[in-house]
Amino acid sequence: MNRDERWLLPEGVDEILPSKARAVEQLRRRLLDLYASWGYELVFPPLIEFLESLLNGAGQDLERETYKVTDRLTGRLMGVRADITPQVARMDAHSLRQEGPVRLCYCSTALRTRPAVPGGTRAPYQVGVELFGHDGVDSDVEVISLMLATLDAADIKAPTLDLGHVGIYRALVAAAGLTETQEYALTDIYMRKARTELTDFVAGLDIGEAEAAALQALPWLTGTDAIEKAEPLLASVSEDALQALAQTKAVIERVQALHPNLHVHVDLGELRGYRYHTGCIFAVYSNGLSEAVAKGGRYNRIGEVFGRARPATGFSADLKILVNGLEVPQVLSVFAPADSDESLDAVVAQLRAQGQRVVRALSGCTSSPSELGCNQQLVLENGRWVLAPLSS
Amino acid sequence: MNRDERWLLPEGVDEILPSKARAVEQLRRRLLDLYASWGYELVFPPLIEFLESLLNGAGQDLERETYKVTDRLTGRLMGVRADITPQVARMDAHSLRQEGPVRLCYCSTALRTRPAVPGGTRAPYQVGVELFGHDGVDSDVEVISLMLATLDAADIKAPTLDLGHVGIYRALVAAAGLTETQEYALTDIYMRKARTELTDFVAGLDIGEAEAAALQALPWLTGTDAIEKAEPLLASVSEDALQALAQTKAVIERVQALHPNLHVHVDLGELRGYRYHTGCIFAVYSNGLSEAVAKGGRYNRIGEVFGRARPATGFSADLKILVNGLEVPQVLSVFAPADSDESLDAVVAQLRAQGQRVVRALSGCTSSPSELGCNQQLVLENGRWVLAPLSS
Repeated sequence: MNRDERWLLPEGVDEILPSKARAVEQLRRRLLDLYASWGYELVFPPLIEFLESLLNGAGQDLERETYKVTDRLTGRLMGVRADITPQVARMDAHSLRQEGPVRLCYCSTALRTRPAVPGGTRAPYQVGVELFGHDGVDSDVEVISLMLATLDAADIKAPTLDLGHVGIYRALVAAAGLTETQEYALTDIYMRKARTELTDFVAGLDIGEAEAAALQALPWLTGTDAIEKAEPLLASVSEDALQALAQTKAVIERVQALHPNLHVHVDLGELRGYRYHTGCIFAVYSNGLSEAVAKGGRYNRIGEVFGRARPATGFSADLKILVNGLEVPQVLSVFAPADSDESLDAVVAQLRAQGQRVVRALSGCTSSPSELGCNQQLVLENGRWVLAPLSS
Repeated sequence: MNRDERWLLPEGVDEILPSKARAVEQLRRRLLDLYASWGYELVFPPLIEFLESLLNGAGQDLERETYKVTDRLTGRLMGVRADITPQVARMDAHSLRQEGPVRLCYCSTALRTRPAVPGGTRAPYQVGVELFGHDGVDSDVEVISLMLATLDAADIKAPTLDLGHVGIYRALVAAAGLTETQEYALTDIYMRKARTELTDFVAGLDIGEAEAAALQALPWLTGTDAIEKAEPLLASVSEDALQALAQTKAVIERVQALHPNLHVHVDLGELRGYRYHTGCIFAVYSNGLSEAVAKGGRYNRIGEVFGRARPATGFSADLKILVNGLEVPQVLSVFAPADSDESLDAVVAQLRAQGQRVVRALSGCTSSPSELGCNQQLVLENGRWVLAPLSS
């Protein structure tokens, strides 16, 4: 391996250099302050946990995405977190154990064995919120609104909100009495929206006509009239599906009332995170990006493994993607000579305390002030150190 | 395994719950702003790298402390960072490639296979600075001053600064012409300050009387008169040792001039990080803590493996330890009813934009405003939503 190859980073892993780092840090603070103003409390989940804690209720997908190492102290298997949400759910259920609603937020790096999309990151700087302890339209709307406020804080213009509800499909599967194997196969067909395959599969099921029609139609119930078209299809099949549909409708109406100019795309057959999600799921897309900028949904069942079934909803985003819409703040510094002089030390300390950047010269160093990123300098005038423009 | 054990975190791994998380985040911002005001630019090194990049020049200690996983995309071995400093050095030498001094800072979680001290953390939230491209007293003093300013920002009172210089011992070893094996054994004795063992070891060496006397005395050259006592001992043995001593003296004088009340403890035989450090090494201790609160030193040789030998010095600390001296900021919120009302929405948005925390009620939730951490509420008075104390 030659010297240049030696320092390559693994695919999907990146470092953040100063100019972008300033923007990332600025957005990090802006978002955590935003979440705080909505009552969401910051937590720092651990970078690593015993595997069985980490994979609680989140299913096999997460296990495949998790890097595992052996704890040298106990010999037990640990995992580096591949997602932060299950950790926060554990903290709500096990560490905080509060009765009422709990609002938490976080901003931490996760690590995946493979990127979520081809060419994507394996180490997202994941920022997000979780709202535990409430099941209903109010919490769905709150979390979606905060997700939209997140995009706004990141200067991402005119996003599209994708909205679905995995409870509709779940209710249809239950109404049709499908086996687990059948459900698994059908879910896979739904994810691929494979129309012919779906027709053949549904035709092969021993179910009623109304059930078959609903299962057949659901993946194409998208867009503005999806709710309207879905109602008669679901009405004769499942009360639960109808109720999930009514929830979806209420969420859309509330979100559109709050965001009249938002483009909402309804997709009632969307099953993203099906093993994990239980209710409304949502994602926001922005011009020119194929991957969702932020996404989330309801996951009421996760608490079960902790012996505490808490309703929950939340969203997350990769700060390193969110930040791409922001301008990188320019930073200019004051150059201070290396002179050992108490009055100079005092002026430097004062400027720094005011938030001004002051770069002190180092003896023997020949870099010019402008090479050090300075546009002003401290000079001695009539016995006082004063700010002056750089002499050219 | 019973349910409670199942959720235990691995030893030396912790999660940070809301009250402490607020303090950690506050201190994180305060420190990164402090470093920015001194001209240090923030970077985010990657959580994981190929092992050979990660362990550049840092020696075997770091390898033992590093968790390794296999990259599923290439089959190559990767490591989760056990220390941030070597990563920042790689970024300076390889990614930034600037000629003059480069000042960088970071605040990221590292992961170690075992704690640095018994009962210590395996996942420090490491905060620190590195100054590349300058060798000399000025950069040593700048980094030590910034380390002291860090403690000050964390409200850690009356710290003790431990100061040493591994160059003195290195020069004595060279002057005595010790083999690598002898140096390894002697370094081990020094680290343990094992007096009798040292006497026997030195007596067994085939070296001059002056060299033997210096090697024998060095571990006990500590405290206020250490420099003075060392001068005659080193004078006849090694010019390099004398020069390192002079540097140490200059650093102490400058630091004491800047911090007249600081307690400085000189220890010329201290060899912390000997394989890594090349010059002045320093650490700060605080009352009641056996582990250093922050520590660092010069490591000029690390650039060699990148084909670019850059002088370097820096320090780091664990933010989770630093924060223990800070009071946790109290946070109180405003309770807003769940009512769907545009004028209420507007008042809530306005309060939040002002940085006020507003917790919105959720339909059907019976938690009282005070249970939700609120001390004020929004009430409708004469058709306007106004802030009012909680009715009891």
